Amino acid sequence: MSRLATGFFHGTAWYPELWQDCIDEDIALMRAAGIDLVRIGEFAWSSLESREGCYEWSWLDDAMDRAYDAGMAVLLCTPTCTPPLWLTSAYPETLRRDVDGRVFGHGSRGHGSLVSRRYRSLCRGIVTALARRYGAHPALVGWQIDNELLGDADGEYSDEARRCWHAFLRERYGDVTALNRRWATAVWSQTYPAIENVPLPGKTPFGCWTGRPVGKHHTSLMTDWGDFISSTARSFIAEQVTAIREHSTAPITHNAISPTRVLPEDAYADVDLAATDLYRTPDKMWTLASRLDLLRGSKMTADRTMRPFLVTETSPSQNGGTEGGHPPHPRGFLAAEAALMLALGGNAFCYWLWRQQRAGIEHCHGSVITAWGSPGLGWEDVCAAGRAIACLAPTLRAHPPAPADIAILHSRRSTAMLERGARLWEGLHPVGSLDEEVYRPLLERGIWRDRRSDTDDWTRYRVVISAFTPIIPDALVERMEPWLMNGGTWIVGPMSGCRTDDATVPVVGGLGPIDALAGMRTRWTAVLGAAHGSFGGREQHELVGYACGFEPIADDCRAIGIYTDGPQAGVPWAVERRIGRGRVVVLGALPRGQMGAVFDELWRESDLWQCRSSWGVMVVPRGRRREVAIAVNTSAEPGWVMWPPRGGPGKRLPIEPHAVRVLRMGSSPL
Amino acid sequence: MSRLATGFFHGTAWYPELWQDCIDEDIALMRAAGIDLVRIGEFAWSSLESREGCYEWSWLDDAMDRAYDAGMAVLLCTPTCTPPLWLTSAYPETLRRDVDGRVFGHGSRGHGSLVSRRYRSLCRGIVTALARRYGAHPALVGWQIDNELLGDADGEYSDEARRCWHAFLRERYGDVTALNRRWATAVWSQTYPAIENVPLPGKTPFGCWTGRPVGKHHTSLMTDWGDFISSTARSFIAEQVTAIREHSTAPITHNAISPTRVLPEDAYADVDLAATDLYRTPDKMWTLASRLDLLRGSKMTADRTMRPFLVTETSPSQNGGTEGGHPPHPRGFLAAEAALMLALGGNAFCYWLWRQQRAGIEHCHGSVITAWGSPGLGWEDVCAAGRAIACLAPTLRAHPPAPADIAILHSRRSTAMLERGARLWEGLHPVGSLDEEVYRPLLERGIWRDRRSDTDDWTRYRVVISAFTPIIPDALVERMEPWLMNGGTWIVGPMSGCRTDDATVPVVGGLGPIDALAGMRTRWTAVLGAAHGSFGGREQHELVGYACGFEPIADDCRAIGIYTDGPQAGVPWAVERRIGRGRVVVLGALPRGQMGAVFDELWRESDLWQCRSSWGVMVVPRGRRREVAIAVNTSAEPGWVMWPPRGGPGKRLPIEPHAVRVLRMGSSPL
Amino acid sequence: MSRLATGFFHGTAWYPELWQDCIDEDIALMRAAGIDLVRIGEFAWSSLESREGCYEWSWLDDAMDRAYDAGMAVLLCTPTCTPPLWLTSAYPETLRRDVDGRVFGHGSRGHGSLVSRRYRSLCRGIVTALARRYGAHPALVGWQIDNELLGDADGEYSDEARRCWHAFLRERYGDVTALNRRWATAVWSQTYPAIENVPLPGKTPFGCWTGRPVGKHHTSLMTDWGDFISSTARSFIAEQVTAIREHSTAPITHNAISPTRVLPEDAYADVDLAATDLYRTPDKMWTLASRLDLLRGSKMTADRTMRPFLVTETSPSQNGGTEGGHPPHPRGFLAAEAALMLALGGNAFCYWLWRQQRAGIEHCHGSVITAWGSPGLGWEDVCAAGRAIACLAPTLRAHPPAPADIAILHSRRSTAMLERGARLWEGLHPVGSLDEEVYRPLLERGIWRDRRSDTDDWTRYRVVISAFTPIIPDALVERMEPWLMNGGTWIVGPMSGCRTDDATVPVVGGLGPIDALAGMRTRWTAVLGAAHGSFGGREQHELVGYACGFEPIADDCRAIGIYTDGPQAGVPWAVERRIGRGRVVVLGALPRGQMGAVFDELWRESDLWQCRSSWGVMVVPRGRRREVAIAVNTSAEPGWVMWPPRGGPGKRLPIEPHAVRVLRMGSSPL
Repeated sequence: MSRLATGFFHGTAWYPELWQDCIDEDIALMRAAGIDLVRIGEFAWSSLESREGCYEWSWLDDAMDRAYDAGMAVLLCTPTCTPPLWLTSAYPETLRRDVDGRVFGHGSRGHGSLVSRRYRSLCRGIVTALARRYGAHPALVGWQIDNELLGDADGEYSDEARRCWHAFLRERYGDVTALNRRWATAVWSQTYPAIENVPLPGKTPFGCWTGRPVGKHHTSLMTDWGDFISSTARSFIAEQVTAIREHSTAPITHNAISPTRVLPEDAYADVDLAATDLYRTPDKMWTLASRLDLLRGSKMTADRTMRPFLVTETSPSQNGGTEGGHPPHPRGFLAAEAALMLALGGNAFCYWLWRQQRAGIEHCHGSVITAWGSPGLGWEDVCAAGRAIACLAPTLRAHPPAPADIAILHSRRSTAMLERGARLWEGLHPVGSLDEEVYRPLLERGIWRDRRSDTDDWTRYRVVISAFTPIIPDALVERMEPWLMNGGTWIVGPMSGCRTDDATVPVVGGLGPIDALAGMRTRWTAVLGAAHGSFGGREQHELVGYACGFEPIADDCRAIGIYTDGPQAGVPWAVERRIGRGRVVVLGALPRGQMGAVFDELWRESDLWQCRSSWGVMVVPRGRRREVAIAVNTSAEPGWVMWPPRGGPGKRLPIEPHAVRVLRMGSSPL
Repeated sequence: MSRLATGFFHGTAWYPELWQDCIDEDIALMRAAGIDLVRIGEFAWSSLESREGCYEWSWLDDAMDRAYDAGMAVLLCTPTCTPPLWLTSAYPETLRRDVDGRVFGHGSRGHGSLVSRRYRSLCRGIVTALARRYGAHPALVGWQIDNELLGDADGEYSDEARRCWHAFLRERYGDVTALNRRWATAVWSQTYPAIENVPLPGKTPFGCWTGRPVGKHHTSLMTDWGDFISSTARSFIAEQVTAIREHSTAPITHNAISPTRVLPEDAYADVDLAATDLYRTPDKMWTLASRLDLLRGSKMTADRTMRPFLVTETSPSQNGGTEGGHPPHPRGFLAAEAALMLALGGNAFCYWLWRQQRAGIEHCHGSVITAWGSPGLGWEDVCAAGRAIACLAPTLRAHPPAPADIAILHSRRSTAMLERGARLWEGLHPVGSLDEEVYRPLLERGIWRDRRSDTDDWTRYRVVISAFTPIIPDALVERMEPWLMNGGTWIVGPMSGCRTDDATVPVVGGLGPIDALAGMRTRWTAVLGAAHGSFGGREQHELVGYACGFEPIADDCRAIGIYTDGPQAGVPWAVERRIGRGRVVVLGALPRGQMGAVFDELWRESDLWQCRSSWGVMVVPRGRRREVAIAVNTSAEPGWVMWPPRGGPGKRLPIEPHAVRVLRMGSSPL
Repeated sequence: MSRLATGFFHGTAWYPELWQDCIDEDIALMRAAGIDLVRIGEFAWSSLESREGCYEWSWLDDAMDRAYDAGMAVLLCTPTCTPPLWLTSAYPETLRRDVDGRVFGHGSRGHGSLVSRRYRSLCRGIVTALARRYGAHPALVGWQIDNELLGDADGEYSDEARRCWHAFLRERYGDVTALNRRWATAVWSQTYPAIENVPLPGKTPFGCWTGRPVGKHHTSLMTDWGDFISSTARSFIAEQVTAIREHSTAPITHNAISPTRVLPEDAYADVDLAATDLYRTPDKMWTLASRLDLLRGSKMTADRTMRPFLVTETSPSQNGGTEGGHPPHPRGFLAAEAALMLALGGNAFCYWLWRQQRAGIEHCHGSVITAWGSPGLGWEDVCAAGRAIACLAPTLRAHPPAPADIAILHSRRSTAMLERGARLWEGLHPVGSLDEEVYRPLLERGIWRDRRSDTDDWTRYRVVISAFTPIIPDALVERMEPWLMNGGTWIVGPMSGCRTDDATVPVVGGLGPIDALAGMRTRWTAVLGAAHGSFGGREQHELVGYACGFEPIADDCRAIGIYTDGPQAGVPWAVERRIGRGRVVVLGALPRGQMGAVFDELWRESDLWQCRSSWGVMVVPRGRRREVAIAVNTSAEPGWVMWPPRGGPGKRLPIEPHAVRVLRMGSSPL
């Protein structure tokens, strides 16, 4: 594959169209900072095509050529996030409309309507022209489609949106009878005479007190709506991919920012490489690991080989728009962040942005150099990150990320439902809950894992976790049994399996076919008050969330967690059933902040790869046989890692603040 | 009167149209739970009339017949809360519009416009068809009109709404000259050339910073607007009552939920029985007593005999929509709640809902059984509530609620003004302030009371309280004197009497004719800062709210409360005047949390019926001579009641958590 | 000049059109309260012109005549804040529209569109008629234009607004090429083909999550928008001034309330006297001094002689609309407030309002007398304020406010940018930050100062402070050098100079030409995290805000403040450069709450006039040679003032709560 899929890059967003007098100065400073990739063109439509069909290539020719001369690679972006005024004036139907019918006009970005055929056609025009001209440019290493799709406004309310929405429903349900049946629309007399009658979700009387622009609609409708909106981004990306492919073989990516709006299944389906823009503060690094694992899993094959992913944007110092946002990174953090990203499978670490915006909306954002050309606050850190990447590259190249034993499954329908339809519990967030309650304890324990879609082939993993995924398709449950017989462990829950694929309550049992699989009966579901329960016969946990009470039916179903107070006292909240050499574990409530203790209990005798370290030190095994590990101290405090991992005595190796260590099995640490 | 007005019922909402395969199973389980009343049809319009004029009765025939066969009573609801899509598509003028002209479309409930003549006509159609078919069904015990009118969106902004609004104003004011004079519209040049010029209240420049959709309008306009909106619900109900009456003699009710939007005077004026939907948590039981007293008073005659009321909905365990809401009830609470409701004069205790919603918006709500047919979390409590009702019924039947000595007056115009026009003080809420500051101390003291409209005949009470009613009509003051001469006590205030019936400031004196009646002069009104005052020569109270300073004029007017600090120091805040054998007491400020001490002082030598108990134990006297009392411990702690009530030594009788005791005068307690 | 510019007044708003039966009673009570000025007509359009062209003068003739007979002066207001219904019905284009196109209809105030030519023409009509009739009335002492322009809604979204907006931009930029260049619109492809394409700022996808009606637009556009909106008020005022001038020589004012919406440069440019409405609570008196200094400076000449200003509204006791607002003033406060206002250069202290509103929206507001004619809660204080004014008048007349050594500059473009465009730092508020961080420490130190526009001639001051003014025009920097050579001290910052006049980032250096002037280079700007720094080699300050790092270049540029932690450790945050006999001091961060220590260090050896006092006692020097000072104790605690000021031993003179002392140099205190 191309350079972009095999190299390691230290990159930056660059807007040569805004700084045409500074190109040489910029390139010289980039080289000084160890930068070897520039991301160009993202918002440049009006500079490329100032009137319809009139292209101006000179500035971009010049920037690409000079980048090439300086030995730099170029990631070229399609500028479709920022349609020019001539376009939206001539074709007003290209403008996005909000739920109240208001047109999002010129003056910002992301105002093009993804469902407008006209807009798509105009986008294909500029993309084709770009691909034709630069598709074979020697500096070109890849393409980025648009920018952070649906990161700002989402929802579409034009007549075309209505037509697309109905086509989506027709595709999914076939006819309105099936839709009415599967949505169970007779509730509240919502029965639809025809699919054409299904509304775009607008303001409703019920729930109008919330002040939100979109009211409370039927959960199945809202779940499909979320699914649909995400799918418009997929087809928008796919059209551009097709247009580029006619003229270029360079790999293509999209820098998705919101994994709950553009579902990862849509963002990366039709591109070659996954990418994301990330602005994390040092105190939340486990959320970074979670997101990057998601990207790594997005382009992974059935045999668990992966493609690298790109971090297309991160701040060299602080965030900010028209106001400053996060505080600047502490010294040393940036190199650690870069190392962690690369260790987790990324191969490009790019800044937003090179030269501070001098105008617009984001002039307070951190940049590598200032608008007047002096080094920004993060300059030294940028240089250090460049050195770190260069230093790690040989090891990373030699040892790809290790296969994991554990797969954490995400679910497109669950995300769509939780994001827009029904939260089930006010504390349930499709991203945050997983990060806090599952990822954090896994990282505390140094357990290596993948994140995969529930439609991927997960059968090569030893453990599968379905947590915070209310929708578990029946098809997935059906695939479970042979794998369980073979020794797999499926951890279901908390708050998983309690809704059908149509986002309704299953009527065959509280958790649908999982009840039968686990040999139990779900008695009820409810959000409990101040509830507690035991687990494994020992601990007392606070139990929260949209919870279940269970009743073991099969002889080999064992209650492993019991509610100990409230009206549910004595009822099991967690059960385990051995199935062949494997087992299914169902957690009917969330032991808040205590999932780690649950994992410890469940894995007491397992031999999962596990490498303990101080909090803030993250360890990533690399190589098919995990022969190497990269340990990164993301914190500003001295830390340690226990090496070798698991079993055996192990030794506590110190790691300086923000330092990186490469550890090798069977040899003394480097 | 019919069974519904004389029996005692344990009921549930039931949606056989959604669960046609489960009817026998449902009825069998209902009987097991002691349920003998089903509430049907509420949201079933599309199942009853799938196209205009095409009625489908079979499922309802079947459900009614089978209910009858099983010995169950049916409360049949008109489905006008959920117009089908064929209706709103064919007649778009039936859809409600919000203040910005946005149409509330299909996909929720409550989107039919109450002022649309077309909508009303279509509602009469389905209601007439229902009444014709089921008006004489042997299972039928009563009718419910629509569902929780104005509980969700309120306000109407169509052209028809405008015409109705102007008709309302013309009815009230006659001509625009009177309106201009009574509203005093010359302020801010608001003078109206014609009634047709009075706007529906929309967004205003003044107050636009609040972000609320309706801006700051003239207080008289907003008060009338609230009055008008409530009156649209009344006439909407009345039309359906008329339609039903042609074919059925069964009693009719409406389950009003918001006493500040559909004023009780409108909700129950044209129906036979009052009803409400109630979702109270155990820690707020005094607010339940307050609301149920309001219902009892709503259909009470001049001689204080009452009709029973219905609690048409309460949760068997927890509330919830697309998310869980309140925590589930503690074990034992439900039976206590049922007993309290029946003791206070209700005769039907109905759940929402029987079988968990499997779709839509409310699938997280507690239910008697789950969507898959297993007993819900509250099942045991439902069974216990059924037993409690059966056990209490003979006593309740033999002893109707006792007449009270005290009437607390509510005022339609005051509520309308406080809800939409002018709060006077940010802490003043038309329901909450009365509950917290008046109801709570009365219940703490075990004092029996009624709530009546200020347009009722209150002359048979010994004490009348007008609290948090800024509007006290002159007509009411005029009726006071003979009653006072005869020994009545009128407690006026806090925050009462300071506005005219048109919601303007009286110019004859700060409290209008009350100044003269009380023999004093109101000096000023103001919201005070951190103010304090004495009362009865003793206590120091914190005084808050929209407050008055008084000056006694008549010799027999006595300052009983004096401000002790601030610029108002030394000025009376409370006065008392003896009038014949009675007295009027005017409270010019709210002694926050201390109204109980004020009542104790005022009633030091009175012989009001009073039965002390521990907090959470509520005692209701029954029988014309109060020969019996029902004591209910609504709390999860052991409690006690002092018996017999008042005077005499009394004995502290223990009551177990959530238990009910029937106490009899002159005999040992049962 | 006229009486209004030379006398001292104790005034009140009066609405004789609403209380025509009470005129004699009102005037008698006013005299009893020592009131000698009435402000009339403000909202009376419908009473003056009940149909187009039909004027009704009798009530106003009568009120003016009777006021004159009683020896009272009249300030006559144009009623253009409240267009009557006949007007807005006949000419709907006169109504203001909000960002969503909603019309602000009748029922409030401020709904006339300032950009509607029709509305302006109708306003000229009533104003001309008023001026013709009363321009020479013997009671008339002055005119007020409209009421609190843009105090409520602002923004205009009609087609006329669009035309005016484009005219404004054409005037400012000439052609679209210049606009594109100066706004740097190529960012995000915002390039405008023509000025007619620049939108009125509406909702945007970017930032749509904020829920605000106006989204995130380009900072330059928003800054110009704020400038434009303010300028519409200026031209609206100017038209009325012209109309009045044809018939009257009496001085004209406008009671501006929002100095960030109607910029002071616009509010007072075309009137004779500055005025404001002020509702301050006793705990925020330094914000009162700041605002009144702004008014004093607004009509000051180059030689620092001033014109008096008016406080057209203040509450006699408490604020309030449909609810009570602030608590009532403590006893004694009002007289102190009046004295302070007069000491600072005002000459009229007027209440809002005389007689409590009996209807509308503001019936809970404090008033001198109640709606029923009794003295309000603040009556005694009003009488005391009258006495205080009478007592101080001779001294004030003999000794005008003293010239100050310090000028604090405000900047129309900075205010416009911070109010609507870009806050730079969430804690930065165009008014609040100056009040808290600059005014408070100056008042704590008893330092006398002026506030001037950055376009005024400030060269006669010894110290100029440019704080919280991100936009410092190049022209101002150019004027600095000769003044600095001559001994001036310029304090630049915090958060000043970092944006060009077009609200973009300067590219010649971080602070534009200030970098060169100060002999340093700005390294970077950023909002820091928890940062600290030293100053003057000693203190450790917490440093916050949109901050700079500096690098001294010139030999005579000295780092006087150094960051001591974080990634910026060791970098200077404050520099000083001696220039001739003067110096420029640049503060690159805000030492929160510690600007006083910075001032102390900077002025250690200066001889600025400074009069220490206890907190709450404010001292104002009067007379060209500061031969007198007025000390006002605004607090309810005993206080003191050190007299004589600065140098010398001084004596601590006590001042009773709320008392006023007149202090004279070289003589014992009075």
